[in-house]
Amino acid sequence: MAREAAQFLFDFGSPNAYLAHKVIPAIEARTGVLFTYVPVLLGGVFKATGNRSPMEAYAGIPSKLAYEALETRRFVARHALTRFSVNPHFPVNTLMIMRGAVAARTLDLFAPYVDAVFAAMWEDGRKMDETAVVVETLAAAGLPADRLLALTQDPAIKERLIANTAAAVERGVFGSPSFLVGGELFFGKDRLDQVEEAIAGAS
Amino acid sequence: MAREAAQFLFDFGSPNAYLAHKVIPAIEARTGVLFTYVPVLLGGVFKATGNRSPMEAYAGIPSKLAYEALETRRFVARHALTRFSVNPHFPVNTLMIMRGAVAARTLDLFAPYVDAVFAAMWEDGRKMDETAVVVETLAAAGLPADRLLALTQDPAIKERLIANTAAAVERGVFGSPSFLVGGELFFGKDRLDQVEEAIAGAS
Repeated sequence: MAREAAQFLFDFGSPNAYLAHKVIPAIEARTGVLFTYVPVLLGGVFKATGNRSPMEAYAGIPSKLAYEALETRRFVARHALTRFSVNPHFPVNTLMIMRGAVAARTLDLFAPYVDAVFAAMWEDGRKMDETAVVVETLAAAGLPADRLLALTQDPAIKERLIANTAAAVERGVFGSPSFLVGGELFFGKDRLDQVEEAIAGAS
Repeated sequence: MAREAAQFLFDFGSPNAYLAHKVIPAIEARTGVLFTYVPVLLGGVFKATGNRSPMEAYAGIPSKLAYEALETRRFVARHALTRFSVNPHFPVNTLMIMRGAVAARTLDLFAPYVDAVFAAMWEDGRKMDETAVVVETLAAAGLPADRLLALTQDPAIKERLIANTAAAVERGVFGSPSFLVGGELFFGKDRLDQVEEAIAGAS
């Protein structure tokens, strides 16, 4: 039986999406199944679902925020993600870089683009809602920054991100990162064990 | 090296506490470590921390509520907890039955009391903030209902529940179920794998 595809629905603005992104290669290696990355605009998901970021939702609950930070440290330690660091500009408006992800796919540059932008956001603490910073980041990664930036203004690119986001909401997505395996939804970096189980079970 | 004790901090009002309670015996069997059950008043925890129940916090986010329900069904299926059913009276004021748990410990009736009350809440859908229902439930389980109910009015019992709750908040607890293993906090039924790892790692 063919192995079921796994989807990773993400927004660069989510630190937990970065953390999942760093762990996905090991799951791919163990299961032999590649994840399909689906860029979605978290702002759009929040608007459509009424959800908010943990930082905002738990702003008045210091012990819950402290626990979330503890779980992040545990995840980082478990997977030795030593380069992770909190972005000092958080929250960053991700519209440009998410459109850029859709654009990068049309140029067959999706994987290097995603690696570069996640690293800029969650390793190098860059302010990735500023065009100059984005251009510099992409150029440093050897990516055609001007061409990608121009494509972010292409109506078809804009529409595709909107369509991805609407389809995700339709499937029950309310936050980032989310995963779909054989139509089953999983939310959060802490479900990666279940995601891997679901992939293995579908094979 | 002696095995580190594990604490299970719970309120009967939490369905996830029931679900954890049903899985703990298997973890105890695998690790050889018994959990110490610590009754805490979730209402007091919420008041002290600013936290709210998922039902309340996610009331305006239908897809998040739907996902929480999906994760409950997955947990129930994984552990074959076929007797679980949502309490139609939820949320139930748990002050009386939580004091009762503290009282039951003084009579060396803690384990049968906890089993009986969790079952009444999350298998039989009983309205456990009504004295008559509590008396009937405890009597049916062969427990000294009148004596336990009388003890819930004992100032020392009341104080003990308050002290448990304050100590839990002090340790960073913000919800139910919570676990402490060697001073490390874990929150939620979905952390039981980590709890088991922590117990095994401390042995």
